[in-house]
Amino acid sequence: MKFSCQKSKLSEAISIASKAVSSKRNMEIMECILLIAKSNELTMIANDMETGIETVVDQGIDIEEAGMIAINAKMLSDVIHKMPEGEITIYSDEQTYISFKSGDILFDKILAHSGDTFTLLPNISYNYQFKISSFSLKEMIRQTIFSVGGEDSNKMMTGELFEIKEDHLRIVSLDGHRVSLKRVKLKEHNEDRKVIVPSRTLNELSKIIDDDPEKEILICISDNHILFKYKNTKMVSLLIDGDYYEIDALMTTDYSTKVIINRQSLLSCIDRSTLLIRETDRKPVIFDIRDRVMKIQMVSDIGSMNEPLPVAKEGDNLKIAFNPRYFIDALKVIGDEEVTLYMTNPKYPCFIRDEEDSYIYLILPVNF
Amino acid sequence: MKFSCQKSKLSEAISIASKAVSSKRNMEIMECILLIAKSNELTMIANDMETGIETVVDQGIDIEEAGMIAINAKMLSDVIHKMPEGEITIYSDEQTYISFKSGDILFDKILAHSGDTFTLLPNISYNYQFKISSFSLKEMIRQTIFSVGGEDSNKMMTGELFEIKEDHLRIVSLDGHRVSLKRVKLKEHNEDRKVIVPSRTLNELSKIIDDDPEKEILICISDNHILFKYKNTKMVSLLIDGDYYEIDALMTTDYSTKVIINRQSLLSCIDRSTLLIRETDRKPVIFDIRDRVMKIQMVSDIGSMNEPLPVAKEGDNLKIAFNPRYFIDALKVIGDEEVTLYMTNPKYPCFIRDEEDSYIYLILPVNF
Repeated sequence: MKFSCQKSKLSEAISIASKAVSSKRNMEIMECILLIAKSNELTMIANDMETGIETVVDQGIDIEEAGMIAINAKMLSDVIHKMPEGEITIYSDEQTYISFKSGDILFDKILAHSGDTFTLLPNISYNYQFKISSFSLKEMIRQTIFSVGGEDSNKMMTGELFEIKEDHLRIVSLDGHRVSLKRVKLKEHNEDRKVIVPSRTLNELSKIIDDDPEKEILICISDNHILFKYKNTKMVSLLIDGDYYEIDALMTTDYSTKVIINRQSLLSCIDRSTLLIRETDRKPVIFDIRDRVMKIQMVSDIGSMNEPLPVAKEGDNLKIAFNPRYFIDALKVIGDEEVTLYMTNPKYPCFIRDEEDSYIYLILPVNF
Repeated sequence: MKFSCQKSKLSEAISIASKAVSSKRNMEIMECILLIAKSNELTMIANDMETGIETVVDQGIDIEEAGMIAINAKMLSDVIHKMPEGEITIYSDEQTYISFKSGDILFDKILAHSGDTFTLLPNISYNYQFKISSFSLKEMIRQTIFSVGGEDSNKMMTGELFEIKEDHLRIVSLDGHRVSLKRVKLKEHNEDRKVIVPSRTLNELSKIIDDDPEKEILICISDNHILFKYKNTKMVSLLIDGDYYEIDALMTTDYSTKVIINRQSLLSCIDRSTLLIRETDRKPVIFDIRDRVMKIQMVSDIGSMNEPLPVAKEGDNLKIAFNPRYFIDALKVIGDEEVTLYMTNPKYPCFIRDEEDSYIYLILPVNF
C-alpha cells in the first residue's frame, strides 16, 4: 500500500472513524482503524462490534499502490496530528509495519496489524429508509439523550426510541424517573415503524454530523441494524431488541395547575439551590405555587434558600417537590424563552410541554 | 457583621484568597476564608500554615456592621458565582451562620465558623526588601518552575533559589537532571541576599499577579519568611531552610560543539519523537550533529523516527542523547526565535543559553 494525502483530510477522517473504536481495550485489533487504499479512494473503518463506521477520503488523495493495513487509532491520530500541515505519504508492507513521511520527517516501520483479522462492517439488506436534516437529528438527540437509563438499568432504557408515525419522527428516552420526548415532521411520507437505538451510537453520531439544516441524513433500518449515511460516512449499529415502554399511556393532558415561567430564571434559580446539597444526600427543590408567584425553596443541613419567581398561573395553588437535577437537565435543552408546566398534585408527574407537543418532558415529583 | 458589596469585587478577592486555602482537607477551618468587615474595608484571609494570603476589598463595598466570620472557601465561591451580577448583601451572627441576599434571592443561615479559631497571618518584622515588576517576576517563575524536584526529592529541590547579587535577581530551580536559571537586572540597588522559596507558593503567586510591566511587587524577606505585596494583596510564605546547591560551579562556559537552531523546529521535532515512547520506557532522543545539519532520531519497539534539521554549527561533530521531556520543557518557555546549544561530549551537560546569560538551561545527557 502506498498513498499521499493532505493532513487535513486524514485528520477529518480519523476523527470520524475514531468514534467507533473500542475503548474497552479488550483486543488490540478493536483499537485499530483499518486503512484500505484502492482506485483513488482511501477508506477508514472502525468497528467495536456494536457500532461500525466507514468513511471515505476521495479528495486531496493520490493512491500509488492499493492495499490495506490496520493501525492503532490513537497512534494514527497522534502521528498525523504532530505532522506539519501539507501532504503526508503513507506506505506499508500490508502485514506488520506502516511508515509516514512528510518532507524530511520520517516515522518509519511503526507497528501495525494485518487487515485480514479486521472485522468489516456487516453487509445488510435494509427494508426501510427515511431522511431527516442533520440539524434536526442532532438537536433531537441533544434534547432527549440526557434521560436515558444508566448502564445498570434495563437494556431498553439504555437506548432511545425512534418512532415514525403519521409522517412524524418521535425520539423518546426514559430512565424510570422522567421521560423526554421530541417530535418533528418529516418532509416525505414514510410508513410507520419503530426501533430502539443504543444511546452510545447516538452520542457518537451527533459528534460526527453537523448542525446544518441543508444537509440530509439517510437512515436505513433492518430487523437488527440501523444505518446512518451522512456525506462520505456510514455508521452501522445494532438495534436493541424488544418492545419499548408504552409511553402514550403516560402522556395525559389533564392538569389542575398550569404555570408559565421564564425558562432561564427558573433554571438559574434551581441551579443555585443545588449549592446546598452535598453529594451524598438527595434534597428536593420545592415549588410553592401561588397566584403570580412561585417560591423556589431548598432546605438542607448546610442552610436554606428561598427565591420567589414571577409566574402566570392558572388553576389551583400547589406545593410540589422535585429532584433538581431532572429539572435542570430539561430546562437546559429547551430553546423557548418561556416554558409551561402542567401539574395535578404532589404525587403526580409534572409535564413541561409546548402547545404543538414538539417536546414533552415528564418529571416525577418526590416526597418533601 | 453586615455589608453589601458588588459581586465582581467579591469574586476577585475570593479567587485570590482561595490560592492559600488548604487542599488537604485535614481541618475544616483550614478550608475556610476568614471575612473581616471594618471601617469600609472587607479583608479576606486564607492560611494553610505554609502560605497565607490577605486581600482587601475597599471599593464597591458598604460596611453596615463590623465583624468577622469564617466560611468554607468553596461554598463561598460557589454561592457568589451563582448569584446574579450586582450588589450582594452578606450578614452573619459571628458564630455559626452566614446569609447572602441579592434582590429577592436569599441564601439563609449557611453553616460557617467563628473567626476566633482562625490563624491570622504571622506578624513579622522584615529586614530586607526589593521591588520587581509583576511581569518580570511572573515570567521568571514560568521559565524556571518546571524543573523543581518532585515531592519525593530533597526538600531544597522543591523550592526555587531567589538570589540578589550585584543588582540582579537570579531565580534557579533544579531536580538532579537539569538546572533552569533566569536572571534580570533590578531597577534599584540592593544588598546581596539569597533565600529558597517553596515552589507551591510561587505557583500560586503567579496565578495572582498580572503580566503587567508597569505594576510592581514589593518583596520583603526575614530569616524565615518571605512576603509579596501586590496591589491590595499580601502573600506570606515560610522559606525553605538550608544552603542551596553551588550552581555556579556547574555553569562552565567551555564547549567543543556549538549549535544554533530554530527553537520551534527543534521543539516540534522532539515533541513528535515522543510519540514512539510508551509511558513505561525511557527512550532517549538522539542528536546526531554534523556540519549544517542535526539529525534527530528516536528508536523504540513501536518504530523509529528520523528528521534532519538545518543548523549553524561550530566545533566538533557529536552524537549525544537526552530525555526528550527535559528539552521540551526548556524550549517551550524560551522566547527567542533561535536557541544556541553548547556541548562538550556525550557524557557532559548541554547548556542552552543566550549571550547575556539572561537564561541558562543545563540538561544532563543520557546513555544511548
